Amino acid sequence: MDRLFDKELRTLRKIILHMAAHVEESIALSVRSLKERNEDLAREVLRGEDITNGYDIAIDEIGMRLLALRQPMAADLRFITSAMKIGSDLERIGDLAVNIVERTLELLQHPPLKPLIDIPEMARLVQDMVKDAIQAFVDKNEALARDVCARDDAVDQLNDQVFRELLTYMMGNRETIPRAMGLLLIGRYLERIADHATNIGEDVIYLVKGKIIKHHCDQMKDDKGTRQEEG
Amino acid sequence: MDRLFDKELRTLRKIILHMAAHVEESIALSVRSLKERNEDLAREVLRGEDITNGYDIAIDEIGMRLLALRQPMAADLRFITSAMKIGSDLERIGDLAVNIVERTLELLQHPPLKPLIDIPEMARLVQDMVKDAIQAFVDKNEALARDVCARDDAVDQLNDQVFRELLTYMMGNRETIPRAMGLLLIGRYLERIADHATNIGEDVIYLVKGKIIKHHCDQMKDDKGTRQEEG
Repeated sequence: MDRLFDKELRTLRKIILHMAAHVEESIALSVRSLKERNEDLAREVLRGEDITNGYDIAIDEIGMRLLALRQPMAADLRFITSAMKIGSDLERIGDLAVNIVERTLELLQHPPLKPLIDIPEMARLVQDMVKDAIQAFVDKNEALARDVCARDDAVDQLNDQVFRELLTYMMGNRETIPRAMGLLLIGRYLERIADHATNIGEDVIYLVKGKIIKHHCDQMKDDKGTRQEEG
Repeated sequence: MDRLFDKELRTLRKIILHMAAHVEESIALSVRSLKERNEDLAREVLRGEDITNGYDIAIDEIGMRLLALRQPMAADLRFITSAMKIGSDLERIGDLAVNIVERTLELLQHPPLKPLIDIPEMARLVQDMVKDAIQAFVDKNEALARDVCARDDAVDQLNDQVFRELLTYMMGNRETIPRAMGLLLIGRYLERIADHATNIGEDVIYLVKGKIIKHHCDQMKDDKGTRQEEG
């Protein structure tokens, strides 16, 4: 029975990995469709939404079955509940990629406002955060999880920069307002993806240490993760 | 032992109720501070953030302890995992009330853009959604939970209306842009609170029926909740 249980836990881990790869791809495609003004890429992200939702439901169902039938203790219990939480965060990240695409499809109806530099850069940062948060989960790597949490500030700063620049466009020429609004929302969606990656990082720290650190990540960032959390 | 377990489940329910009352109050205060231009009310919401976080951690810790020590089956297991998910949603609702207040404190530095009608109306709708979603949880009332999910559309429509009106202000007079942006973001925060209330409604349906209905709520809304979900 123990070997079967281990196999089920590996299945859960594998689904999380597939789901993460899928939503990372959705983020990449959504911002590429915006930058390259390619509607086909945008449609691909929309078609992928059902896949994300399917993974999320599968994780919840397997997780609940394992909790009910296996009645796991300690580390296994934390692994299962963390996997379920990570599934929810990945699902919301997938939703945000869809939101990016919705704004992109509106923006593609109009000529480009400006060459895009900061938004693709933000997209790269948040994609790496999601990737590393999942890697930290798979490897139970607490240091990497803390590093992901610490990177949230850089994304926030980049988003503030995007916001200020777009506000300047809007103030300068009211015709730019609808397009600037679209880009501004896309910046916020990317910022929220970074927040979900941070949540995953916090779940990984909980998984490894057995202590809930959420809402403490801000303190953590101040000293680069060397502080011990009080829980 | 069964009576002790029941008592622990009641404690969990009671904490959810207290937490929900606290975040409902935060939503109400945040929008009142905006409408009445009262900075003190805004500060009260900021002070309340730690309380929300404390409730969230308490729910997670009690939930994990019950899962580990009691190894609950079926309905009790669903109750505990639902409570943990609802705790996360309430925590995010609390964060969004804080976001409203952050924008409000910026807006209070400037003269009012316009009398506020739709945003307070949205706030009333979303507060009722949160209240009823929690009531549905406490009473295991599936019909009320489905009703909450169905109300999400009305909030989305009101937010679209707010968005269009503010865009008109921005296009007409660029000096209104920073203030209109602030109000526009507050509309989006309220819309996201409604999304979290809908998540709670979905969790309640899962709790009652034992089937995962998330991502199916949209279908449900089309026929006012009479359709049976396939899970």
